[in-house]
Amino acid sequence: MKPIISETIRTCPQFYDLDPMNIVWHGNYPKFFELARVALMVRIGYGYDAMRESGFAWPVIDMHIRYYRPLRLGRWIGITASLTEWENRLKIEYLALDELTGAKATKGHTVQVAVDIKTEAMLWETPAVLRDKLVPFLV
Amino acid sequence: MKPIISETIRTCPQFYDLDPMNIVWHGNYPKFFELARVALMVRIGYGYDAMRESGFAWPVIDMHIRYYRPLRLGRWIGITASLTEWENRLKIEYLALDELTGAKATKGHTVQVAVDIKTEAMLWETPAVLRDKLVPFLV
Amino acid sequence: MKPIISETIRTCPQFYDLDPMNIVWHGNYPKFFELARVALMVRIGYGYDAMRESGFAWPVIDMHIRYYRPLRLGRWIGITASLTEWENRLKIEYLALDELTGAKATKGHTVQVAVDIKTEAMLWETPAVLRDKLVPFLV
Amino acid sequence: MKPIISETIRTCPQFYDLDPMNIVWHGNYPKFFELARVALMVRIGYGYDAMRESGFAWPVIDMHIRYYRPLRLGRWIGITASLTEWENRLKIEYLALDELTGAKATKGHTVQVAVDIKTEAMLWETPAVLRDKLVPFLV
Repeated sequence: MKPIISETIRTCPQFYDLDPMNIVWHGNYPKFFELARVALMVRIGYGYDAMRESGFAWPVIDMHIRYYRPLRLGRWIGITASLTEWENRLKIEYLALDELTGAKATKGHTVQVAVDIKTEAMLWETPAVLRDKLVPFLV
Repeated sequence: MKPIISETIRTCPQFYDLDPMNIVWHGNYPKFFELARVALMVRIGYGYDAMRESGFAWPVIDMHIRYYRPLRLGRWIGITASLTEWENRLKIEYLALDELTGAKATKGHTVQVAVDIKTEAMLWETPAVLRDKLVPFLV
Repeated sequence: MKPIISETIRTCPQFYDLDPMNIVWHGNYPKFFELARVALMVRIGYGYDAMRESGFAWPVIDMHIRYYRPLRLGRWIGITASLTEWENRLKIEYLALDELTGAKATKGHTVQVAVDIKTEAMLWETPAVLRDKLVPFLV
Repeated sequence: MKPIISETIRTCPQFYDLDPMNIVWHGNYPKFFELARVALMVRIGYGYDAMRESGFAWPVIDMHIRYYRPLRLGRWIGITASLTEWENRLKIEYLALDELTGAKATKGHTVQVAVDIKTEAMLWETPAVLRDKLVPFLV
């Protein structure tokens, strides 16, 4: 799906991310996705502080990760987070490339829905506060 | 898909698993799945020690998690891991239920492939060592 | 110092706790201490729920860990948490023993102080709510 | 103690580092120290790759952390790692400052000893390979 807006960050696995096979443990990838998602949301003007102020939390309700090549200590990766759905839920897709070789390391997605922080009720439609922030990117 | 063999463990989220919304951070679920997968593999007789001795590692190449209800501090969950594919790759499906209410909290799957530890080559077929261990469960 | 009250839990390092040296990464030990501390506080009747209801949080302000022997996958350890100070701050000492050999694996301590959740002010004295709960153990 | 060599990195706590009190969970600080220690060791020319090639691992045998002020989401900190002992063991001291206010957030230390990777024997003296790398800094 054509992304509405994308943002890319660079990161580098640390020793504590590795497992005894000397590669990043598969369960640590959600942290890397988070870095890219946060950068994307900040660019939209809807980072964690703005979310909280708006009265909504955005729990992840679905996550998929496809591991193509292991991530290794000291090998920089670039991760691009792309917003591909927003009307009823936020779908963000991720692509991680090895910076040195350009090879595809990982791809995946997360789906988030808005929850009213006070009532804990889930919203079936993206609240106006986020729709307004997305307007400039929807042309 | 009908599971070939299943195993269930119980666990309870800890304070360090929680995020500022007071629920388990979505990226911590792979640790819970791991507990159930390890129990399943131990029952098959192919835990981490046996894997290493057999000369194969089994990296996760695909993971999917669907979050139905948040996990909370001190709320015990039961997680069932079920082996549903084994011939070319291991597919394990997970179902987490709230122990108190029986409500479905999470489901998901992981896919693993065998890698020869010495050559780092991926195998396209499950090695004999694991096939032999599965025989008693394949009737 | 003579402990006022102690509690012991058993735990077993998981694959995701290990680093490429095939031992538990040193930075993962605070999670193990937490398990023992939580069990101790629950026995006192002052677990996380009771803390929150009492209006106080108890941040850790000091932690020390001494690593005697590495922790390894599948090797069960017993961790004893002992309350040794409580009047102005909570000091809890930890001792982790290898269950199989009885060898000392780790020791350490944490120090916590009470913070009023509403005002975020630090208390210089343990609040009455906890003192009352400790009475039965102070004979 | 006068540092032999120091290195400073910047980092910023992420959402997954936080606990329900909306501050960084105390057990996550070793990851922040690691970032500064790695930068220091790389500057000495003795990062993880060089360690492995030299045939030695350097497990942490002692860690102390003093928490002065909580770390918060999005608040950048500068962490300085300083080598203060090296002849029989490596002692590295850490100081974390809030970038905005300059206030002291945390200090601590780690102690590491050399272990021969093949024999798993602990060395009572820093091996020549590291001594040689430290020469330029010992004037």
